[in-house]
Amino acid sequence: MSKLFVLGTGPGDLDFLAPKTRAAIEASDELVAYGLYLDLLGDLCNGKTRHDRPLGAEIERARLALDLAAAGKNTALISSGDIGIFAMATLVFELLDRQLQGLEDHPEWLDVDIEVMPGISAMQAAAASSGAALGHDFCAISLSDLLTPWEVIEQRITAAAGADFVISFYNPVSLKRRWQLEKARDILLESRPASTPVILGRNLTRDEENIRVITLGELTADQVDMLTLVQVGSSQTRHINVGGREWVYTPRGYQKKMVN
Amino acid sequence: MSKLFVLGTGPGDLDFLAPKTRAAIEASDELVAYGLYLDLLGDLCNGKTRHDRPLGAEIERARLALDLAAAGKNTALISSGDIGIFAMATLVFELLDRQLQGLEDHPEWLDVDIEVMPGISAMQAAAASSGAALGHDFCAISLSDLLTPWEVIEQRITAAAGADFVISFYNPVSLKRRWQLEKARDILLESRPASTPVILGRNLTRDEENIRVITLGELTADQVDMLTLVQVGSSQTRHINVGGREWVYTPRGYQKKMVN
Repeated sequence: MSKLFVLGTGPGDLDFLAPKTRAAIEASDELVAYGLYLDLLGDLCNGKTRHDRPLGAEIERARLALDLAAAGKNTALISSGDIGIFAMATLVFELLDRQLQGLEDHPEWLDVDIEVMPGISAMQAAAASSGAALGHDFCAISLSDLLTPWEVIEQRITAAAGADFVISFYNPVSLKRRWQLEKARDILLESRPASTPVILGRNLTRDEENIRVITLGELTADQVDMLTLVQVGSSQTRHINVGGREWVYTPRGYQKKMVN
Repeated sequence: MSKLFVLGTGPGDLDFLAPKTRAAIEASDELVAYGLYLDLLGDLCNGKTRHDRPLGAEIERARLALDLAAAGKNTALISSGDIGIFAMATLVFELLDRQLQGLEDHPEWLDVDIEVMPGISAMQAAAASSGAALGHDFCAISLSDLLTPWEVIEQRITAAAGADFVISFYNPVSLKRRWQLEKARDILLESRPASTPVILGRNLTRDEENIRVITLGELTADQVDMLTLVQVGSSQTRHINVGGREWVYTPRGYQKKMVN
């Protein structure tokens, strides 16, 4: 039975790519991904067939990966970060589900041996590079309304505000999609102070990593691009300066156990 | 300046430990952790001083790690999973914050060079092993009311239910703490069908990994222990059976773009 590895390569620096995931890429003959992600893999692509498809061709990529694996080729469907988080893994299962429902004509897909492998996601790299913002309850919300109605997204932001979650916003803006992030900010400002720390993480774990800590009141769409992870603190999140180095952390409540 | 690495070793299988994180452990002379986590590191501990402290001694471990690093020793403070997620990283910064506020008498801590490194968390391993439950918006909530008042936790569960998040429950039960998980289930059952898929993941990524998929209606505390990650689907999460293999996934909404 041929194998389909469904895997993410982590936040950037390939030194955060797990050996098990690297071995799966090495064991694959066909690599299916957005071209940029394959470029980042460098020598790991040597001797393999690259199937790069542009952003927006996600369904095509998932179909191609299933087709290649069903044709007997060891295949890796690849994203950055964790492919299970706002990424391609779910599409593979959606296609299998459609086949089960008779909406596809690819019974051969059902014989593919699938292995999904977790990876480090951008929210984790952003938190680590700036301290420990995910130290207590948190959520992750995609601000892309291409596939999810804005009303649903807005309801989630409102609920997340009520829950006082630390919030990681994925897909905060795109070239054409600009207003959603500021709308999210305005919803959060109804229940969180303008001084709430916000982490803007870009090119995480790479040499050109750029981490900025601003406040919720200062957050505007023009500070952010498609590659930025936006992490908004809860009411408890603290921003401290230790000898010129800025850190953000969300306490778990240990102060109750500490003697002052 | 001495170095304090604050790092998680991932969900279990050390093949999911990133090379960069492994190198940080290798570069450390002093390892501070709960003993079980050090045992799992095996040969990586050779030639290093092990400082194992029991569960419950989290503050002591964070202090010790800062003390050792401040004394000029390269030190690693270690947890499993991602040390930034419901784990020790935040305590290090809480202690620094206390020093800044004059509540501690350890000015030497402020000179420690801290590097936090992300790791793969249990929720990601559980999702990957069972499909792609984290494919759309999600949250993570700790059910431990040792440090957080239950009223706050309950408010978060209620809000998460309203947001229709996929929910990962960390610390679902302990030997003495049994009723919280079933209370959480009952809150979720007010807005999600009893048929909602629930993933129970234990010993994730290890040889003895045990993944079970049940329904929200079936969830009871006696199916779960301290080492279990409980992941509850959203209203959209699907449970499918592909040739005898069970998968759980949360669609992102691509069906709108697929031709039936």
